Amino acid sequence: MGQKLPGVEAFFAFCWEGLSREHKDDLISHSQPRNFKNGDIILPYKGECLGLMLVQSGQFRAFVLSSEGKEVTLYRLFDLDICLFSASCILNNIQFDIQIQAEKETKALLIPSSLYERLMNQSAAIANYTNQLMSSRFSDVMWTLEQVLFKSMDSRIAQFLLEYANIEGTNDLMLTHEAIARDLGTAREVVTRMLKYFTNEHLLELTRGRIRLLDIKRLREIAG
Amino acid sequence: MGQKLPGVEAFFAFCWEGLSREHKDDLISHSQPRNFKNGDIILPYKGECLGLMLVQSGQFRAFVLSSEGKEVTLYRLFDLDICLFSASCILNNIQFDIQIQAEKETKALLIPSSLYERLMNQSAAIANYTNQLMSSRFSDVMWTLEQVLFKSMDSRIAQFLLEYANIEGTNDLMLTHEAIARDLGTAREVVTRMLKYFTNEHLLELTRGRIRLLDIKRLREIAG
Repeated sequence: MGQKLPGVEAFFAFCWEGLSREHKDDLISHSQPRNFKNGDIILPYKGECLGLMLVQSGQFRAFVLSSEGKEVTLYRLFDLDICLFSASCILNNIQFDIQIQAEKETKALLIPSSLYERLMNQSAAIANYTNQLMSSRFSDVMWTLEQVLFKSMDSRIAQFLLEYANIEGTNDLMLTHEAIARDLGTAREVVTRMLKYFTNEHLLELTRGRIRLLDIKRLREIAG
Repeated sequence: MGQKLPGVEAFFAFCWEGLSREHKDDLISHSQPRNFKNGDIILPYKGECLGLMLVQSGQFRAFVLSSEGKEVTLYRLFDLDICLFSASCILNNIQFDIQIQAEKETKALLIPSSLYERLMNQSAAIANYTNQLMSSRFSDVMWTLEQVLFKSMDSRIAQFLLEYANIEGTNDLMLTHEAIARDLGTAREVVTRMLKYFTNEHLLELTRGRIRLLDIKRLREIAG
């Protein structure tokens, strides 16, 4: 409480100096504070084209959904990340659907899509910055694709557990097997089998709804 | 022979009107003709940062390569397509390696990366156009990811055969099972088994090194 949240200029730090006074003022004066609860959907959002969502504090998850309802996580956004695809309507040639959802209570600033579109057209600095944001998300998705294509399930699960521990800042994870399976787009049984194998190898300890990581070093080796 | 190849302005048709006279002249006067043979590597290219490769005629394939040498095709580029990632060195935040190779004899125009970087920084039109190119490639990769994640192998192989027939303009395909397996990142045995199944279903006919598609309608249904 009372903690100061980052302003627009913190998100555009890489190109702020290259912007005109007028464009800086536009960004500051038109950004709107938004609050999301855990589970709130950011994209698709009631048929509206929201705009850039600047994550001040909290967590978003971007994922794809198959027609059978299978989910696979593409990437996560944290404090000071910019959610570009909530403005995908103004990005020509984007021909895919992703879903974005809050995973924690999240405070964000919204830059409306109409304003951002105008700035992209007027300012090479903003257009190039958008490019950098897209490159980052593209890199995230390529990482996920290479995981899916080339990595075996033991390494993907080890990777997931280590990343989760890192995000939460603890080796004592409140995680169900269902949650891991959903994130990796596999069956719960596959996750349960692998976690039992890890337990037998003394890499972790399982209790109801909780996973305690015991051997971080070997989990890192498996994660590769 | 003697067929006129498209010039630079044909590739930048979407933003040509938005460019200054000087930038148009830069693009035209600095583009360099390049010829590639089937199998030539465009990316990575001898440690050089080439630049934008404008495909005038021919075919490029972009793919990822695992540490064990497994390949998966991400997308293909044809006449009038622009190869953006041969200039990936000037795209900040691109953190992945892809390989690009000529699949046919290919004629291209090269826009050197130093020139293109300067134009992106000076022109919002060029920067936004780069954005559109990146969005297209991002969409291609998302399509591949969704295929890998959500589609069964029968549908992926049917899809591959139909696309290949479409590219080559014939239903009589000179294709080995190895080539299909390599493209889809699976084992040759899996492809052979599925092609035999398709043969039994009278969807295609197999002879040495050749696949003749018989029932396009049903293959389309399987491709989904």
